Amino acid sequence: MKILVINAGSSSLKYQLVDTELDKVLAKGLCERVGSKDSYIKHGADKDERIFAQYMADHEEALRIVFEALIHSERSTITSIDQIDAIGHRIVHGGNYFDSSALITPDVIEKIESLCTLAPLHNPPALKCIRVCERLAPDLPQVAVFDTSFFQSLPPAAYMYPLPYELCEKHQIRKYGAHGTSHRYIASRCAALMERPLEDLKIITCHLGNGCSISAVDHGIAVDTSMGFTPLDGLMMGTRCGAIDPAIVPFLEEAEDLTPPQINEIMNKKSGLLGVSGISNDMRDVRKGAEEGDERAVLAYEMYAHSIRKYLGQYMIEMAGVDAIVLTAGVGENCDRMRRLAFAGLQPLGIILDQEKNRRDYHGKERFISSDNSPVKIIVIPTNEELMIAQDTYEIVSKL
Amino acid sequence: MKILVINAGSSSLKYQLVDTELDKVLAKGLCERVGSKDSYIKHGADKDERIFAQYMADHEEALRIVFEALIHSERSTITSIDQIDAIGHRIVHGGNYFDSSALITPDVIEKIESLCTLAPLHNPPALKCIRVCERLAPDLPQVAVFDTSFFQSLPPAAYMYPLPYELCEKHQIRKYGAHGTSHRYIASRCAALMERPLEDLKIITCHLGNGCSISAVDHGIAVDTSMGFTPLDGLMMGTRCGAIDPAIVPFLEEAEDLTPPQINEIMNKKSGLLGVSGISNDMRDVRKGAEEGDERAVLAYEMYAHSIRKYLGQYMIEMAGVDAIVLTAGVGENCDRMRRLAFAGLQPLGIILDQEKNRRDYHGKERFISSDNSPVKIIVIPTNEELMIAQDTYEIVSKL
Repeated sequence: MKILVINAGSSSLKYQLVDTELDKVLAKGLCERVGSKDSYIKHGADKDERIFAQYMADHEEALRIVFEALIHSERSTITSIDQIDAIGHRIVHGGNYFDSSALITPDVIEKIESLCTLAPLHNPPALKCIRVCERLAPDLPQVAVFDTSFFQSLPPAAYMYPLPYELCEKHQIRKYGAHGTSHRYIASRCAALMERPLEDLKIITCHLGNGCSISAVDHGIAVDTSMGFTPLDGLMMGTRCGAIDPAIVPFLEEAEDLTPPQINEIMNKKSGLLGVSGISNDMRDVRKGAEEGDERAVLAYEMYAHSIRKYLGQYMIEMAGVDAIVLTAGVGENCDRMRRLAFAGLQPLGIILDQEKNRRDYHGKERFISSDNSPVKIIVIPTNEELMIAQDTYEIVSKL
Repeated sequence: MKILVINAGSSSLKYQLVDTELDKVLAKGLCERVGSKDSYIKHGADKDERIFAQYMADHEEALRIVFEALIHSERSTITSIDQIDAIGHRIVHGGNYFDSSALITPDVIEKIESLCTLAPLHNPPALKCIRVCERLAPDLPQVAVFDTSFFQSLPPAAYMYPLPYELCEKHQIRKYGAHGTSHRYIASRCAALMERPLEDLKIITCHLGNGCSISAVDHGIAVDTSMGFTPLDGLMMGTRCGAIDPAIVPFLEEAEDLTPPQINEIMNKKSGLLGVSGISNDMRDVRKGAEEGDERAVLAYEMYAHSIRKYLGQYMIEMAGVDAIVLTAGVGENCDRMRRLAFAGLQPLGIILDQEKNRRDYHGKERFISSDNSPVKIIVIPTNEELMIAQDTYEIVSKL
């Protein structure tokens, strides 16, 4: 089955054409700066990647150009839209409606639409893409894969906030989580690598990119996650502060005469690694700064590790133990120094990093980095949300 | 040595006259609703307690009435202010100035004054009491015992918030902690009960009253604590929400058209057990509701336990293990059902509650409630901040 995976960001559009029989990515690419004068498309097929400057006013135009590139570019692997069997969309917010991926129907579209207030930057462009696909290929089945659905299994004690109950109800305030597709993917790969059923394992999954989240996956079921009502909650990230004393928010609003959108901007865009180090939101730059002895870079580095350790502990208690800790995304996959700091001194709890394995670079390969005698396994697994979306789409569509 | 301990709240004044040689409380009492028409004083000595309605316009007047009661009431134990050897004051905020208790000097007073913006409800009445004492007994040595000083030992990675560095510096935003005197007291009692030096132990101290905080005391040194820049941070409490997704604050301000003081009021006074259950901020009422099957009371109960478990896990990782968990204050000392829930299923991590010992009521006595074979000891220790303040005062004054 040939499945087109579409991931619409606020000003970007990523796509992959996956052949599920051959287990192969036939083509993939990225439209960047959609809506701006200097937008462009990067399209690749068969190790050949080209970048074209191309004005795309909105996601509708971007998607038309994607189909163009898939079908008519030099090394196109299909010659007509009819050769695609299904389309899988990444949807950021599924609210309380979806605890798994869903075939797109008018009812599903309506629900995704009703959640636009909770994900104003992401659900609207995704909806636009769904509608364009409907027009261009009315008979093609489409599937929605939600970032939040994996966390609908959380118990109320984990997903409710201790605010006035009526306020939470009125505004649908609860922990929704994010990066669910990534957490689900690496948890399932972890079980495969350990050659044990997912249903037998207690796994802590760490998605550490520019956005960061950690989840507790207990016997295959997500029981907690660090991102909350919004993707600001939880860990310290590239530019996000994560959980802080909430009283700091009104304090700073008054002290600095800030509006709610302004404090939101500070917490989301100017905090985290960037805010502490003053250098960059990119761990590679902060690491370089720390290695050169910059004090604030060292502090940012240590705070980041401290923040990870907090959640390792929380989820270890929540599951009354842990069999494996999995790391993925930019920092999780590539920053051996951060991993060393995050796991330092945890031998008494059965978490033992193998320093040599941790240092070695396997260029994007899945690998164990715990000592052979470590009761808790530590595993690096490059995430693959597109593959997970393609698999979900395949499973739903093949049953039609 | 006879030491008067004074604890000035925003509208209350607690006091104890302690004889450190006899290790005995000679008299104690409480002025309530200071500044309001229906203020009163409850004064007790030698198991005899009396309540007098008495208008007290401010803390100065309250303190004069306290001295009156100590010296001239029926069963007074002293006949003149000169029989007091020293006064120890509880000071809520010592900022970054004080990492231990301090003899009160003009310089110390100035520093406490400069911290009034960080503790606007508590530092000013305490200062007023210090000045009244100076006037009434100019030669009496006075000592300041700070709620925050115990946490000045936290490493920067634990006390810094990942917000823009300059903003934190400008407004002195960091984790200060609270309940420090209580945590210090129960950690030291824990070591005594375990008959081991405090310097050998990893202790998690849980102060669970209407306000709640948990600390990690590693070899006698506080390395982390749940309260933060303000006493709102950390655990779910009686009326406080504790740590939540900070993006909820600007979201609610906009959605409900709230000012910063209004959202602060909601988070501090209308959340926690009260906000979730809709019944009460008092655990006894919520427990009753839960036992009667009230769904929101059950939820509040489970969320509260979940919140405790989070910090047990964090601090277990931060110290790479734990030897003892100590519980104190209203809920910690008295709610066996909450303790059962908080420690449920943690046997695999070596934390085993003895159900029978947990249920038994020892009426305010220190006691082990873990199983004899539990590697981690669980201990209930009634807190005694006044005794700690008296001891600190004694130590400083006896060296003069």
